[in-house]
Amino acid sequence: MNTKTPKDSLTVMNELVLPNDTNMLNNLMGGRLLHWMDIAAAISAQKHCNRITVTASVDNVSFKHAIKLGDVVTIEAKVTRAFNTSVEVRLDVWAQNVPSGTRVKSNEAYYTFVALDQDGHKIEVPGLIPETAAEKELFAGALRRRQLRLVLGGKMKADEATELKALFINDGNKG
Amino acid sequence: MNTKTPKDSLTVMNELVLPNDTNMLNNLMGGRLLHWMDIAAAISAQKHCNRITVTASVDNVSFKHAIKLGDVVTIEAKVTRAFNTSVEVRLDVWAQNVPSGTRVKSNEAYYTFVALDQDGHKIEVPGLIPETAAEKELFAGALRRRQLRLVLGGKMKADEATELKALFINDGNKG
Amino acid sequence: MNTKTPKDSLTVMNELVLPNDTNMLNNLMGGRLLHWMDIAAAISAQKHCNRITVTASVDNVSFKHAIKLGDVVTIEAKVTRAFNTSVEVRLDVWAQNVPSGTRVKSNEAYYTFVALDQDGHKIEVPGLIPETAAEKELFAGALRRRQLRLVLGGKMKADEATELKALFINDGNKG
Amino acid sequence: MNTKTPKDSLTVMNELVLPNDTNMLNNLMGGRLLHWMDIAAAISAQKHCNRITVTASVDNVSFKHAIKLGDVVTIEAKVTRAFNTSVEVRLDVWAQNVPSGTRVKSNEAYYTFVALDQDGHKIEVPGLIPETAAEKELFAGALRRRQLRLVLGGKMKADEATELKALFINDGNKG
Amino acid sequence: MNTKTPKDSLTVMNELVLPNDTNMLNNLMGGRLLHWMDIAAAISAQKHCNRITVTASVDNVSFKHAIKLGDVVTIEAKVTRAFNTSVEVRLDVWAQNVPSGTRVKSNEAYYTFVALDQDGHKIEVPGLIPETAAEKELFAGALRRRQLRLVLGGKMKADEATELKALFINDGNKG
Amino acid sequence: MNTKTPKDSLTVMNELVLPNDTNMLNNLMGGRLLHWMDIAAAISAQKHCNRITVTASVDNVSFKHAIKLGDVVTIEAKVTRAFNTSVEVRLDVWAQNVPSGTRVKSNEAYYTFVALDQDGHKIEVPGLIPETAAEKELFAGALRRRQLRLVLGGKMKADEATELKALFINDGNKG
Repeated sequence: MNTKTPKDSLTVMNELVLPNDTNMLNNLMGGRLLHWMDIAAAISAQKHCNRITVTASVDNVSFKHAIKLGDVVTIEAKVTRAFNTSVEVRLDVWAQNVPSGTRVKSNEAYYTFVALDQDGHKIEVPGLIPETAAEKELFAGALRRRQLRLVLGGKMKADEATELKALFINDGNKG
Repeated sequence: MNTKTPKDSLTVMNELVLPNDTNMLNNLMGGRLLHWMDIAAAISAQKHCNRITVTASVDNVSFKHAIKLGDVVTIEAKVTRAFNTSVEVRLDVWAQNVPSGTRVKSNEAYYTFVALDQDGHKIEVPGLIPETAAEKELFAGALRRRQLRLVLGGKMKADEATELKALFINDGNKG
Repeated sequence: MNTKTPKDSLTVMNELVLPNDTNMLNNLMGGRLLHWMDIAAAISAQKHCNRITVTASVDNVSFKHAIKLGDVVTIEAKVTRAFNTSVEVRLDVWAQNVPSGTRVKSNEAYYTFVALDQDGHKIEVPGLIPETAAEKELFAGALRRRQLRLVLGGKMKADEATELKALFINDGNKG
Repeated sequence: MNTKTPKDSLTVMNELVLPNDTNMLNNLMGGRLLHWMDIAAAISAQKHCNRITVTASVDNVSFKHAIKLGDVVTIEAKVTRAFNTSVEVRLDVWAQNVPSGTRVKSNEAYYTFVALDQDGHKIEVPGLIPETAAEKELFAGALRRRQLRLVLGGKMKADEATELKALFINDGNKG
Repeated sequence: MNTKTPKDSLTVMNELVLPNDTNMLNNLMGGRLLHWMDIAAAISAQKHCNRITVTASVDNVSFKHAIKLGDVVTIEAKVTRAFNTSVEVRLDVWAQNVPSGTRVKSNEAYYTFVALDQDGHKIEVPGLIPETAAEKELFAGALRRRQLRLVLGGKMKADEATELKALFINDGNKG
Repeated sequence: MNTKTPKDSLTVMNELVLPNDTNMLNNLMGGRLLHWMDIAAAISAQKHCNRITVTASVDNVSFKHAIKLGDVVTIEAKVTRAFNTSVEVRLDVWAQNVPSGTRVKSNEAYYTFVALDQDGHKIEVPGLIPETAAEKELFAGALRRRQLRLVLGGKMKADEATELKALFINDGNKG
């Protein structure tokens, strides 16, 4: 099975914020954005795996900026690391008010996906070789984020999460 | 401003899994479920706050069981703790195959919401008084989960997160 | 085949009124509400029958109060009586303006469903045993409403509808 | 205010049954059809009234034939009678399996609508003059159906519904 | 295989312009109208062919009038000419502001469809016999429009398009 | 007003083909694709104009390959030429079957958009300077395609369309 690079799975999605996507203040609802992010991430995961992939988890996502009715939401997704039968996908989200030309970074997030065969059983995925410095940093951090998922999901004891401890000693800013 | 109890914000939602909600294996897509959970949680937060509320963050959510086309998804949401201008909402999700009568717990999650006035400014919310033992445990854990959000969002240093350390010393199972 | 009680089929649905659900006065369109009520009632009927169920009829529904954009619609459905291969489901609908906290009863309705096997043939359903006084009254009234359906559908002559005559002698208020 | 004829409000709608409109047997869900019928009837009522109109009630609707995925649903709506501030709309629904060319009558129904001005207050509507024999029969029957709505809605006592009694003496077949 | 007339395939569709169909000026988006036109044309093509039909091409469509939120869009489709395994469908679109009663012609367009059997292979379609003078003119023009499609699609050289030259010598107004 | 280059308006959209987007052969319906293309093109036009833009016309689009349920549709849009108050947008569409990794070019198309101010009046747009050889060819061809639109729309006589004649003398393959 051939390895791949992050750019092989790069997926860009642009969505227009329509009335039904918004709340009473004409702001995009968080759940609608999570839904779009899941589709973008699923496409990215499938490009890497050449398999049907299903969402295994979503890491903590915070919503800092109101995105308005009529804005264009741009979502970029790419695989950061492949594990045995799963991949981690990094998402970057921008909101653009087109008439004024302003564009703000609104979210960063990580979704993980499991690859399945036609019968729904887990199946091995190609490895990922990071190329750029930024990709290598995301690749390294993926281990720490995976331990946090396992601890939060009750599948690993906190004191066994050796990589995760780096989060509490160094910078927690990268999620 | 009067305080409220968790049952004041209890919100139940039942959704039928339709074809457009599913992937090529006829399983509910994770993003669609996150979208439904956001709506249920927003209604619950609004019942507590009597204000428009907007999603501030979603904690780590993992998807353990495939939910199938035609299943009934039941989402229960209630406020676990009120902070100054925000609330944490706990969600429990079940999937039911109605003909066979089976029903499995599929997810547990926490969403947080900020209350806004008509001009979109943050506004104080009523306090929450937990009543049952389970509600008191969720109330206590809310502080620890909040610290994890702040650390992951880069707004608090890990070594200042005194409550969060309990997560790494005691049981990490509750999320 | 075991009998069931009304609370076995109790189904609660909360829906947020979004822009596409409303007319030019920002009021929920009647047809959209009928659609939501059908889904809630179908889930309730399936919980009772443990079978696929399909809508057989909807009784007269009247819309007395305008439900506004942004309101939360709460629908409660439960089976009132089981016939040979069908059930009657009672629906109660409330509309809640969450910021102001007001909540009004907006509709009461009856939908009937037929249970089908995998080949689409009618199949026997479990009996229903009403427990509370209110459930017993709904159980008794179901016979009269069924006769009205048969008369309106041209399947029974009006002078054979012995139970229905009670409607014209006593109180017609219950539908 | 000029009077109108039924053909002034004739509205035809064709809809294709898509996957999300169907249940697990690939049959159109009743609630979806009620939704389409409401839109067709609302357009018809608006053509008659030249006003925004809102659904006031739906009479008993029964579903006799399964409509399949891929079928074309044809809905014809026209106003049968105008009252002071409301109109009754008659709907005829056909389902067509286009490849085989079969076409069956699937439903007949009556919806009533109230006309509103821009502030949401009830407003007088133009009168209706039936032209054909069929239109005159529908016009006459409208009074009887209206009494049934009032009795079922608890706004008229059954023994005052003089027109309605015709239903129980003559043919109950026309709804 | 029997021939058919244009009125055998006449299909009328009425759609209400809802918030999600509009842009920031509350005007119907062009793509949404193209989508509705495709469904109306597909139904018309299927009525003629009694087969599954798929869109083969859309001719140049121009949008001259803004259609507003709340307007009723009426689409009329009928087959103008049958070729070997395909048909051309003519669409006429009107927009009606119901309260004011105004109604404007908004678009004219031609879609072509190919008929397929259950395995997805092209299959012969019934011939079309135009009846009225207008239908005969549309029938004649269909040849010229077909040549333009073939030239634009790179399947015919411009100097072989004998019928098309009429467009450049006579009136280019009919599309 | 500053000029822009084609890459300033480059817009990429990825969409997953869901059940409701498909016909009875599980192929993407043409109208749904036209709808997506319109949204992608509108975003691209808005990026160039920094204004609200509305669809003015769609050139002939042909559908050569069936796109299947579950495929990923990738749409790339960029402005090819700016006129006084309008822009032409070129669209390239690919369909990708992710598990097998196959990817086919499915469509090429041109949409034109008019820029509007907040009152809905036409307003001047920035000029476009093509950079690459391919962009320069698209820029040159835009004049010819514009003449064809004007002739087909009845706004220009065929014998005045000097640029268009090139289409009939040279290669008609570029649309």
